[in-house]
Amino acid sequence: MDKRAIIQGYLPQHIEPQETARAFAPSNIALCKYWGKRDANLNLPINPSLSVGLGKLGTETRLSPFDDPQDRVSLNGEAVDPSSAFALKLIAFLDLFRPAGSPRLAIDTHNNIPTAAGLASSASGFAALMKAINELYRLNLPVEVLSAFARMGSGSASRSLYDGFVEWRMGVREDGMDSHGVPLEATWPELRVGLLTVTEAEKPVGSRAGMARTVKSAHLYQSWPLQAATDLEQLHQAIAERDFERLGSTAEQNALSMHATMIASWPPLLYWQPESVAAMHRIWRLREEGLALYFTMDAGPNIKLLFEADSQAAVCQAFPELQVVTPFGSA
Amino acid sequence: MDKRAIIQGYLPQHIEPQETARAFAPSNIALCKYWGKRDANLNLPINPSLSVGLGKLGTETRLSPFDDPQDRVSLNGEAVDPSSAFALKLIAFLDLFRPAGSPRLAIDTHNNIPTAAGLASSASGFAALMKAINELYRLNLPVEVLSAFARMGSGSASRSLYDGFVEWRMGVREDGMDSHGVPLEATWPELRVGLLTVTEAEKPVGSRAGMARTVKSAHLYQSWPLQAATDLEQLHQAIAERDFERLGSTAEQNALSMHATMIASWPPLLYWQPESVAAMHRIWRLREEGLALYFTMDAGPNIKLLFEADSQAAVCQAFPELQVVTPFGSA
Repeated sequence: MDKRAIIQGYLPQHIEPQETARAFAPSNIALCKYWGKRDANLNLPINPSLSVGLGKLGTETRLSPFDDPQDRVSLNGEAVDPSSAFALKLIAFLDLFRPAGSPRLAIDTHNNIPTAAGLASSASGFAALMKAINELYRLNLPVEVLSAFARMGSGSASRSLYDGFVEWRMGVREDGMDSHGVPLEATWPELRVGLLTVTEAEKPVGSRAGMARTVKSAHLYQSWPLQAATDLEQLHQAIAERDFERLGSTAEQNALSMHATMIASWPPLLYWQPESVAAMHRIWRLREEGLALYFTMDAGPNIKLLFEADSQAAVCQAFPELQVVTPFGSA
Repeated sequence: MDKRAIIQGYLPQHIEPQETARAFAPSNIALCKYWGKRDANLNLPINPSLSVGLGKLGTETRLSPFDDPQDRVSLNGEAVDPSSAFALKLIAFLDLFRPAGSPRLAIDTHNNIPTAAGLASSASGFAALMKAINELYRLNLPVEVLSAFARMGSGSASRSLYDGFVEWRMGVREDGMDSHGVPLEATWPELRVGLLTVTEAEKPVGSRAGMARTVKSAHLYQSWPLQAATDLEQLHQAIAERDFERLGSTAEQNALSMHATMIASWPPLLYWQPESVAAMHRIWRLREEGLALYFTMDAGPNIKLLFEADSQAAVCQAFPELQVVTPFGSA
């Protein structure tokens, strides 16, 4: 289905831009991963996913109308080439909402995420942009509609419309409007996420191409939706019962199973570097020694550690370079 | 079913040992892997597999009856502790065939395989032992029966009763006697196997325990039998057509898919070391540059390169430490 046609059904008749609009959206780490699309145009997933937001780490986007024949994009204060993939994607998304004849915009994006840590800035980026568009044009759209629209920019952006734990329901509708984030009420103040940068090397295959290759060529991918469905259920129970071992082990097996589907693809898709494997063995050794430490990984070589506040000293001793995030705000 | 009961049905009424018996069996490298048992006692596999023998690399075993209250085991000329797992397994296997009141034996095993390269010596070991038992007691058993019996010692030993390409049919009988090796007629004189030792570290989890863990805990394992069935068919066609790209790519995806099922297990089973991953990336880079080079891996950190004679110079330049094997004898 056509994105624009879907979106038009939700927009007000007359749109008048504000002076300026500004919005923030948090980055998120999936504990049950999104891997595989049933609709590549609308970013509709093959499986549901569940994430935790990273609180104050994320993207702030400001939109300011101005008189100029061309939009102007900046990232972290630096002008971005308008013909770059980054600028083109932002502007194409914006144009799904911009009324005809409406002025050009300065789009200023600030990420306070360490980009080297391999955190997907597209999730918080499209979520913040969507919120800023909603402000700028006074669309007054409900958050689940914003989440479904942000998903069209980047699948995992659907989860960055909310703080805390968020399930991205896969939905069943052809237009995808029931495929959006749903926040969980539960909080977990002791939960910690540790960002471990094992290498800053650029990843050779992006997530979109990686997913497509896996779905097409990996026999093992056929079992992935079952794995994800089971893990989602386990995570809901772990969160309800504050059972950290269950949360950590489920998230780790989920991430490794996702990587397993990539490894079983052809050509093989291995995002891991030697340093990734060294870190994994180190984590498993620490766990064998009694530390309640688990990890998750996205489509890249870096590792996100999962632990609780009472293990933080021990974890930081083992990984002095770790950047620790407190998803539920309490220090 | 009871191993002894199955075996008894094939043995002659009266058994008289020879003076001495000696037999050799080649090691083998699976291009389609054996991973998962439907019967752990008889080593009956969940999927068929296909291997290539390593010619003169393998195990030679000599059995010599002598007057002594205890069997005596040696490995590469060194006495082996009779209470070690190695000696106990050999003797337990031997006792399935040894007639009551028959003399004790000196069991001398010689491997000419670089054990550090992670080649499974149990395959050639049990195959050679089985052949030597057949000689010593003049059992005159057909080779497919020897293959099925050797399988009871170590699954992959069923393939080491033959040279060249061997399919291990999974069979359907409850007693497993149709689960044995079947040699292929085809040869491939240009085929080369390169043994790359990336680390000599002992593997922390043996194949038997690793398989059991995978079958029990990895959702992704459910798709493995389909992968193996497809790969087996691909390999038969690649061998029939001498299509090396097809042989290599099928073997590599099969091995990586097997490792993927381990990685998706809980607790995670990762036989790879940082050096394994570095070597994989190196192989893929060389392939991108045009070299027809593929690899396979067993349940360990080391890598077996697959290439043809005309690439040997380039491969050995990239991996100077490589030990090159010529499965079909021509140098």
